[in-house]
Amino acid sequence: MSDAPAFGDRVRGALGERGPLCVGIDPHEHLLRAWELDASAAGVREFGLRTVDAAAGRAGIVKPQVSFFERYGSAGFAALEDVLAAARAAGLLVIADAKRGDIGTTMDAYTRAWLTPGSPLEADAITVSPYLGVLSLVDTFRFALAHGKGVFVLAATSNPEAHAQQRAIVGGERTIAAEITREVSGFNAVSTVPGEWASIGFVIGATVDWADAGLPAQIAPIAPILAPGFGHQGAKPGELAGLFGSAASAVIASESRSLLAAGPDGLAAAIDARVREYRSSHG
Amino acid sequence: MSDAPAFGDRVRGALGERGPLCVGIDPHEHLLRAWELDASAAGVREFGLRTVDAAAGRAGIVKPQVSFFERYGSAGFAALEDVLAAARAAGLLVIADAKRGDIGTTMDAYTRAWLTPGSPLEADAITVSPYLGVLSLVDTFRFALAHGKGVFVLAATSNPEAHAQQRAIVGGERTIAAEITREVSGFNAVSTVPGEWASIGFVIGATVDWADAGLPAQIAPIAPILAPGFGHQGAKPGELAGLFGSAASAVIASESRSLLAAGPDGLAAAIDARVREYRSSHG
Repeated sequence: MSDAPAFGDRVRGALGERGPLCVGIDPHEHLLRAWELDASAAGVREFGLRTVDAAAGRAGIVKPQVSFFERYGSAGFAALEDVLAAARAAGLLVIADAKRGDIGTTMDAYTRAWLTPGSPLEADAITVSPYLGVLSLVDTFRFALAHGKGVFVLAATSNPEAHAQQRAIVGGERTIAAEITREVSGFNAVSTVPGEWASIGFVIGATVDWADAGLPAQIAPIAPILAPGFGHQGAKPGELAGLFGSAASAVIASESRSLLAAGPDGLAAAIDARVREYRSSHG
Repeated sequence: MSDAPAFGDRVRGALGERGPLCVGIDPHEHLLRAWELDASAAGVREFGLRTVDAAAGRAGIVKPQVSFFERYGSAGFAALEDVLAAARAAGLLVIADAKRGDIGTTMDAYTRAWLTPGSPLEADAITVSPYLGVLSLVDTFRFALAHGKGVFVLAATSNPEAHAQQRAIVGGERTIAAEITREVSGFNAVSTVPGEWASIGFVIGATVDWADAGLPAQIAPIAPILAPGFGHQGAKPGELAGLFGSAASAVIASESRSLLAAGPDGLAAAIDARVREYRSSHG
């Protein structure tokens, strides 16, 4: 679909080379204070750039949390632009955790903001929310494929407040979470070269019980799974294989506080140690 | 909860004074071309400021669509800041249509970005997405109340792609859309002075069939309903009362393309005419 290598391939390459760790870039106020940075656009810029420096050459993937930049308005977005550019220049895969979701031309504008090559907020992938229907996101998926980009669709999250809603039953048959994986996998099946990884993936919390959430035992075609919930939130590197079963090889294990709490001077060592932990338990 | 007048009161006042029309500020590329403006941050700024000028003193409420500004990155957000400030200075109620949704400290950063008095992106209310559970939004609701701000929770939308999901059944009992109105109304019941309007409202598409969506015949306490789907998307001013029944008095009828297509020189007259149409059919 595009001259650029597919995002699914790039994820596969990054996981193979560096292991599953994804470094979350989450400059919330508490961490800014701990790093002796101001709660300001300048503070989140500095925090983001230092985290990129520490992650480069160690982890394969970073995930800036957009809200912590948006907090400071246009100046915060200018900081985020610098962080995104630095991360991409350092060869990191960048997932903008934006959880955008809308329809029609409105969704199209979000898509172009984050996935257009050369745009100020260019990332390699974004997270999206499916409350307006997976089919309202298909143009986003197509745009991503055409430009070597990726999309992660919120499917099942670990937070208890979402439990009832994500397990609601669609059409008397399956849970919302299952319906989302089914619809996205349907798109992936017709748009992915057999044997390669899909570029449209899922957000599935590390501690989600797949059977309880109604998720299928196998996601096919293989698609990247962005999994928050490692580190501070509870799941351990050695548990990855057991938690994700046959999908484990495609899991991107996102950690932020557990690493960022090491402070600017300890962060690189904390990332190194954690990468080794994942690799030794991951085979 | 706050010295500022409650958002629910402010909506009630605006609807009483100016009628239900809310002018959408949707500078998508097609409209920028029609207005002879560049598809750029400067273009969306000019588009937004001219729309605010035309709306001021005519309509009570405007709704900038964040994605069309986000499209241009930090420069687009700087333009949006100018548009938000101009609209609030002109006495318009401003709903930032951002459809943000996350959990914990991440959601908190979105909340503070848009609802903190004095912050660069300050609006009077934001739209939010409930895919991570209504309870994950309660801190946002509380923050809004404490600062005289409002929140609109996506409940039931008209786009067909969302139909199955929003009608999925929670706990064997009610639709997702019904569960969302139930949970938010529960919050409103304990946080709203009897007889006054709640400040946490809903997004319900104008052409949604309430019975089919499982929505209750009556939403209590009375809460503002942001209703896209008027104008270009099909619903007419004269249909408002029939479409919303007992909830009609709290409806904010959002129109964008139907007005914006009049061009910069015809926009004020188009708004005037439309305000009169709503008033004459609204009583």
